Amino acid sequence: MYEFTPSYLKAVEELHQLPGIGPKSAEKLAASFLRMNEEDFESFISSLQELRTKVKQCVKCFNLTEADLCPICSDPNRDQFKLCVVEESKDLAAIEKTGAYNGLYHVLQGVLKPIEGIHSHKIRLKELFHRIGQETFQEIILATNFNYEGELTAMYIVKELKNRSITISRLASGLPMGSDIEFADQLTLKNALRGREKFSEETFK
Amino acid sequence: MYEFTPSYLKAVEELHQLPGIGPKSAEKLAASFLRMNEEDFESFISSLQELRTKVKQCVKCFNLTEADLCPICSDPNRDQFKLCVVEESKDLAAIEKTGAYNGLYHVLQGVLKPIEGIHSHKIRLKELFHRIGQETFQEIILATNFNYEGELTAMYIVKELKNRSITISRLASGLPMGSDIEFADQLTLKNALRGREKFSEETFK
Repeated sequence: MYEFTPSYLKAVEELHQLPGIGPKSAEKLAASFLRMNEEDFESFISSLQELRTKVKQCVKCFNLTEADLCPICSDPNRDQFKLCVVEESKDLAAIEKTGAYNGLYHVLQGVLKPIEGIHSHKIRLKELFHRIGQETFQEIILATNFNYEGELTAMYIVKELKNRSITISRLASGLPMGSDIEFADQLTLKNALRGREKFSEETFK
Repeated sequence: MYEFTPSYLKAVEELHQLPGIGPKSAEKLAASFLRMNEEDFESFISSLQELRTKVKQCVKCFNLTEADLCPICSDPNRDQFKLCVVEESKDLAAIEKTGAYNGLYHVLQGVLKPIEGIHSHKIRLKELFHRIGQETFQEIILATNFNYEGELTAMYIVKELKNRSITISRLASGLPMGSDIEFADQLTLKNALRGREKFSEETFK
């Protein structure tokens, strides 16, 4: 029977194993690698190799970094008493973009997903509790996502820390700016009501 | 302002440039490359490098191959008077799987897409016409896809060959096996009617 060239099949198989890449996408990608000019291909390969060799996790907060300590952990001007817990480095980047937070972070490098077998020891939770035991934080801000796994992880952390006298907060859940109340889902609207804030001229300062 | 590590951003950017990879998928892929163990990563990279170095196009039919001539072009038992024109090597593989065809192929390595600027000189059409001029074919079977681009390409070929005394055929369009007439789209049903075949015991032989 006719068979594709083995090198082609091997490449398609490898691409298919990447997350979110189905068999059709894998073929499309293989075809695009065949079409690419040499320079672009070399640049692609070396970018992945550099990613692997240069990027590591900060020894303190597990944020992605090229040094041992990430730029935030090594910045003495950050508020050393606040710790914001996020799932991924990209969440940290999103919060940094707001300019509204000047404390430290702890990047879990994942989220609890019991169904997929991602339990507490597979993410940086042990390191979080160790850190909270060693350093003196006044507030832990839980900034995991507002979905099932994110909520589960936030609840897990709250439970683990319940015997410590430390303020634990969670990002507010409510209506996103620009949204219509009419179209808000029930849970969001419920959270928005429960978390309602005093509203005065102060709010705009 | 806080910035991700440059090597991470570069890798995400490179991944984002691949076809069908959006910014979110690019981030997911970059994260998966960071998580991969060394062996898997090396195997991935070398599969892409082998794809590039080993896989080329057959000098005759432009099928993907690791030799100069693909296994089909170098097989003397194939019917040298029939030529089946397909868009991609994977279409050739699909036809080979049926075992119902023993002729040669011509792989266009694409299809006409005027809107995306893919005109006749960007695919292997010139080579097709050159080949038809040089070799003696009794029949050209057009097996481009049954969508807008595939039909356009088939029509383009028919038009170019109109002054040659050569049989040109197109794969039959009709109802796929296992389908209900009730749910067939109008065009397919129309084609199935127009292409209706004599039906007798012979059909099952």
